[in-house]
Amino acid sequence: MELKEFAQTVSERINAFMKNYIDNFDDAAPDLKEAMSYGLLLGGKRARPLLVYATGLALGSSFEKLDYPAAAIECIHAYSLIHDDMPEMDNDKLRRGHETVHVKFSQTIALLAGDSLQTMAFEILSDSKSGLSDKAVANLVKILSSKAGYTGMCGGQAMDLDSEGKKIPLEKLRLLHSKKTGALIRAAVLMGAVASENVTESVLLILDEYAKYTGLAFQIWDDILDVIGDTSVMGKTQGSDISLDKSTYVSLLGLDNAKKLAYECVENAVNELKKLDIDTSVLAQFARFTISRDH
Amino acid sequence: MELKEFAQTVSERINAFMKNYIDNFDDAAPDLKEAMSYGLLLGGKRARPLLVYATGLALGSSFEKLDYPAAAIECIHAYSLIHDDMPEMDNDKLRRGHETVHVKFSQTIALLAGDSLQTMAFEILSDSKSGLSDKAVANLVKILSSKAGYTGMCGGQAMDLDSEGKKIPLEKLRLLHSKKTGALIRAAVLMGAVASENVTESVLLILDEYAKYTGLAFQIWDDILDVIGDTSVMGKTQGSDISLDKSTYVSLLGLDNAKKLAYECVENAVNELKKLDIDTSVLAQFARFTISRDH
Repeated sequence: MELKEFAQTVSERINAFMKNYIDNFDDAAPDLKEAMSYGLLLGGKRARPLLVYATGLALGSSFEKLDYPAAAIECIHAYSLIHDDMPEMDNDKLRRGHETVHVKFSQTIALLAGDSLQTMAFEILSDSKSGLSDKAVANLVKILSSKAGYTGMCGGQAMDLDSEGKKIPLEKLRLLHSKKTGALIRAAVLMGAVASENVTESVLLILDEYAKYTGLAFQIWDDILDVIGDTSVMGKTQGSDISLDKSTYVSLLGLDNAKKLAYECVENAVNELKKLDIDTSVLAQFARFTISRDH
Repeated sequence: MELKEFAQTVSERINAFMKNYIDNFDDAAPDLKEAMSYGLLLGGKRARPLLVYATGLALGSSFEKLDYPAAAIECIHAYSLIHDDMPEMDNDKLRRGHETVHVKFSQTIALLAGDSLQTMAFEILSDSKSGLSDKAVANLVKILSSKAGYTGMCGGQAMDLDSEGKKIPLEKLRLLHSKKTGALIRAAVLMGAVASENVTESVLLILDEYAKYTGLAFQIWDDILDVIGDTSVMGKTQGSDISLDKSTYVSLLGLDNAKKLAYECVENAVNELKKLDIDTSVLAQFARFTISRDH
């Protein structure tokens, strides 16, 4: 299937699933409920759910089972965006052309909405209706929590804040991004695989390598777009990393070498997939997409 | 065993376990790591871990297995305190006589430390080293997430904020507290039971009733202490609910009737335990403690 078509299917599916999940909550705290829904359904590429579905389907799982890990990881992503936008972090007023949660509601509600969306990720993963085995559930919780917490996304976010205004070495930049954005991309692929309940350790290792390369390519391309991108297309201010005086792949390697490294990562990602005898065409297209997108 | 002695044992044990857990994290984000440790180890009664251990041990589980759910629920409690203390929520500068996390570190770090401690709860629950079965892990995640999120603690917190300056009916106050503080007390008891891997549905229901009554007694007594307590002993300002113009059990029922209801709740909690043929003396003592404490 073509990536664009698959992305569209996935996006509609996961939005409906997540909306329904929140709608089914009680109405004891209507503002909080509305803010959670708003933050979660504000749009976005749904790249992480896409990777969950693409990996799980390639290994023989069903859309119905994969809805749960796909929604869970998107809840984690959404909570991190809500908290990142808050005044004490990036202080962003707009996301994807809409008011951020703390602007539309309040800082108090944004704090609570982020907190509740994180919890909701684990509620969804442990929902008996998923039909996932206890073994898969325990494993999914383990993957998501280890990649989202201190040793993953949150730790990467703290490293990133700490690196503003500093020139950091390439190795540290790599570690920072492997945590801040790479960890959840790996989690998405691994969760799709584990939810298939049909994956060997060696296949998991190959998929993890694919995810590492893809995540790295994605980040390098982000840094490149920050220099060459068009602000109106990107939805964020071009050059914002430069203005924060952040080290980036471009600032450390130069534009040409950064591009070269991104291409190499995609090449490596695709080569990993070739080791598998399953249909990974969507995953391969996704890896290529990371360095062809304009936002 | 006497409650006081048991509480001391549990407190030392869980503090050592949690400190060790964080110490084992990498050092990529030292400020965040320190803030997580500070927020988690600032003290407190460790009431929730106590309930996990007391319930689990009564049902034949071991301290070693119960360390995991006990630490997980304390991580959730600690994260909620860190976020509650922040300027956009209660704006508290002190907790248990020490600077709150956002004062000692920064608002940014407090936000991330709370977020990471919530994730850490689920990391601990799904840690393979616990020796818990996949079934128990899946069930523990389900209990903790459903009691900590929108339908539980976070929703109760949002209801509480929304009720400031309003007179709310008794039924709503009851719902608010059943979510805000009651839910985690129930979670503690249920998690201890489930972690024993040796509990029937009917025993779970009885323990849940015990936990509901105990949580309610705890909250009513908090409201009473807010009126009659001694600020220096309580570590928070006496009369703080009155100054926020919040509805409380005392403001809605009057002091005498509030006391009467608290006594009744403890009576009911203890009567539930009598239906079980296991040694629940620590749980019974805990229920009585909720209405004898002076802070």
